[in-house]
Amino acid sequence: MKFKKYFILIFLALLFHNLYAEEYDVVAQKILTKGLEENGAYKILEKLTKVGPRLTGSPQAESAVLTMKQLMEDMGLEVRLEPVEVKRWVRGEKEEGKIVSSYFGTIPISICALGGSISTPESGISSEVVEVSSFEELKKIGAKVKGKIVFFNKKMNPSYLEPFRAYGENAWTRHASAIEAGKYGAVAVIVRSLTLSIDEYPHTGIMEYSSDVPKIPAVAISTKHAELMSKFLKYDPSLKIYLKLNCKELSPVISHNVIGEIKGTEKPEEIILLGAHIDNWDLSEGAHDDAAGCAHVVEALRLLKELGIKPKRTIRGVLFMDEESGGTGGKAYANSKEREKEKHLIAIESDRGGFLPLYFGVRAGKETMDRLKKWEKILGLVGILGIREGGGGADIGPLAEKGTILSTLVVNSQTYFDYHHCAKDVLSAVHPRELELGAIAMAVFSYVLSEEGI
Amino acid sequence: MKFKKYFILIFLALLFHNLYAEEYDVVAQKILTKGLEENGAYKILEKLTKVGPRLTGSPQAESAVLTMKQLMEDMGLEVRLEPVEVKRWVRGEKEEGKIVSSYFGTIPISICALGGSISTPESGISSEVVEVSSFEELKKIGAKVKGKIVFFNKKMNPSYLEPFRAYGENAWTRHASAIEAGKYGAVAVIVRSLTLSIDEYPHTGIMEYSSDVPKIPAVAISTKHAELMSKFLKYDPSLKIYLKLNCKELSPVISHNVIGEIKGTEKPEEIILLGAHIDNWDLSEGAHDDAAGCAHVVEALRLLKELGIKPKRTIRGVLFMDEESGGTGGKAYANSKEREKEKHLIAIESDRGGFLPLYFGVRAGKETMDRLKKWEKILGLVGILGIREGGGGADIGPLAEKGTILSTLVVNSQTYFDYHHCAKDVLSAVHPRELELGAIAMAVFSYVLSEEGI
Repeated sequence: MKFKKYFILIFLALLFHNLYAEEYDVVAQKILTKGLEENGAYKILEKLTKVGPRLTGSPQAESAVLTMKQLMEDMGLEVRLEPVEVKRWVRGEKEEGKIVSSYFGTIPISICALGGSISTPESGISSEVVEVSSFEELKKIGAKVKGKIVFFNKKMNPSYLEPFRAYGENAWTRHASAIEAGKYGAVAVIVRSLTLSIDEYPHTGIMEYSSDVPKIPAVAISTKHAELMSKFLKYDPSLKIYLKLNCKELSPVISHNVIGEIKGTEKPEEIILLGAHIDNWDLSEGAHDDAAGCAHVVEALRLLKELGIKPKRTIRGVLFMDEESGGTGGKAYANSKEREKEKHLIAIESDRGGFLPLYFGVRAGKETMDRLKKWEKILGLVGILGIREGGGGADIGPLAEKGTILSTLVVNSQTYFDYHHCAKDVLSAVHPRELELGAIAMAVFSYVLSEEGI
Repeated sequence: MKFKKYFILIFLALLFHNLYAEEYDVVAQKILTKGLEENGAYKILEKLTKVGPRLTGSPQAESAVLTMKQLMEDMGLEVRLEPVEVKRWVRGEKEEGKIVSSYFGTIPISICALGGSISTPESGISSEVVEVSSFEELKKIGAKVKGKIVFFNKKMNPSYLEPFRAYGENAWTRHASAIEAGKYGAVAVIVRSLTLSIDEYPHTGIMEYSSDVPKIPAVAISTKHAELMSKFLKYDPSLKIYLKLNCKELSPVISHNVIGEIKGTEKPEEIILLGAHIDNWDLSEGAHDDAAGCAHVVEALRLLKELGIKPKRTIRGVLFMDEESGGTGGKAYANSKEREKEKHLIAIESDRGGFLPLYFGVRAGKETMDRLKKWEKILGLVGILGIREGGGGADIGPLAEKGTILSTLVVNSQTYFDYHHCAKDVLSAVHPRELELGAIAMAVFSYVLSEEGI
């Protein structure tokens, strides 16, 4: 008799286990089918990129906030804005760069101010150039760069499997070169664009100053012109560079993070966060960086909402302001009083472009990883190749202190830096199916986690 | 004493095991670094696509054969050609299609003859159109299509994760519609292009006739114009289509498979085959289909050769002729007398474009799969996400009868059918890094298998 009971229990357990595993399969399949048939992510991307460049603090950035708020409201999501005070840097009109050489004549070069750079004097700067590829080299040369322009020509390493590794290794050239060159009295810095592609597009991005070092103008130069200038300098070390920038730092303004969500039916205070950033650099419409991430987040919510899914825990999308210039949106979100009554189980960020999604990176202990890996099979149905170690992101980073598990939607990044922070990052560079698959993956992962917890 | 011996043996075993596992790691890393630094695959791709379209039997196809032979010889590979008798179909000049409607006027439509189609009469064909989306529908209509043009308008299913599945499901519309429509006395067939993209490019590809059914001309129409025509037909069912083709079937010619290899030092008769096809359709230079595969194969050999690797078993690259029109190259290779003294352990085909490689598909029993899966870690170092069930390919298929394990380099195929068999399949559609990673994966996999056997 006892035995019989035992078997019945096992039988029921197996039965329910199967039903329940099957249910996720079925939902994942529904999400996949609906997503690929409707290509909703691309429609969202079109709307957001149509606003134009969304530089933090700009009127377009605020227009993007309102556009996405309206869009999410129209989808029936619960939407609100949370304020963020942001700095407002503007590029100004007509940047200019040229090589002036007695051997080669005058040759325009494709440059752009780095984000946060000060302007040149109105008449521009004209000076000789010292090429270096490391801070050690600069240190050796030292005071000899006084009154000159320092040219950081450090090539990104093409031999890494992962372009983000090469980017990470070279990011200091953009971040810190104005400080390092400023220490020795340089009048400006020119930084080789952070891309593996050899082309004529300068790539901008944030740079920094130090309060105890004189501020000097900082520009990026296209890789093609970096290589050209390097060659020219070998023949004519006394050539001069003329640079003219018109950047300005305006007063800070109040901007917003955009939040849209489907409230949890059982544990609404427990949150599965999907994040991306709504601002971008001003040289393009920022299709991959990071309108694609916004499209992932909003489309994931749309798919769940329209399929009538009522998650147990809250699935929340956050479109963060100001990832590019200061990360103030991510910090404001994490530190808001609103967070006190909430518990963020996991934050999943998409900020690597709208390319084919490959896997979810997760930063968590072994036990949690093992629990999450259970869902690999479900994720496999929508093309995700696994859950791997390593996750995070600029916007969700501040949540880690509160015990939130961080995760990244990792996509094919082989071509990402061709587009990153330059004029090529436009709508037509994103493929509707690849973009949609990212949204589908986020929908499925967040749905399972909202039901199961972590 | 006995115990001590035992421990020493274990220690030595562990030591050698480690050394040996590490060696593959080191070689894989060398292959990765060299490949990504040199981008050799893209240089090969440039050479091959520069030849132009390489339609089976054409002078350009033979020029491609000689180009690749020379290139492999210059790399120091052992190279030879093996003859293949191929049919020679030519498109002829000035194909033309238009809608002629009393409501809408005369509208040119983007069409192209399907490969193998007969010509229209010199004056063209002008006839009313019957739209169907399946053979069942055609069968129901039956004799009513007599004297008319049948328009197969079957959309590829966008909701599958895998575009190849949708392609496979619709391939009959291209292959068999001339036979099916011919049975009921149709005068021509128009087939919706096999692509998920909605654009103005007609996609060609092989079609078939049956000896007991009258042959009728067969064309592909772009998806955009297929949708347009379908709408027009609702308003004006009596509109006519004018079609003019100038195709010809010329006499068969002798063409070649191109073989380049690194001979095995210990078991030269045991072969690890890397395959792709050198011919392509005539509407483009066939960059993804399959110049990319050829670049994968040749670059894999170049990387191994230049790194001074001397494999135990022979690593052979075969660039097959005539995959597109009849598969005669693959058959000729498998059935050649040369094969009698050889044993092909595995044949790995690349014929899915030069996109990001994801995994190797393998068709083998569980035991073999388990043995192969041992190498997933090494392959992971170069970005390959695993070894999965299911492999094969048109060119290597005939080897299966002889016990050869078949494998496919599976790449990101989300955009493949945007390019497949149409004028868009050009060099600039291939990204150097993504292409190179395919070559690197083939080099690493073939190297490990050449050392270890299967």
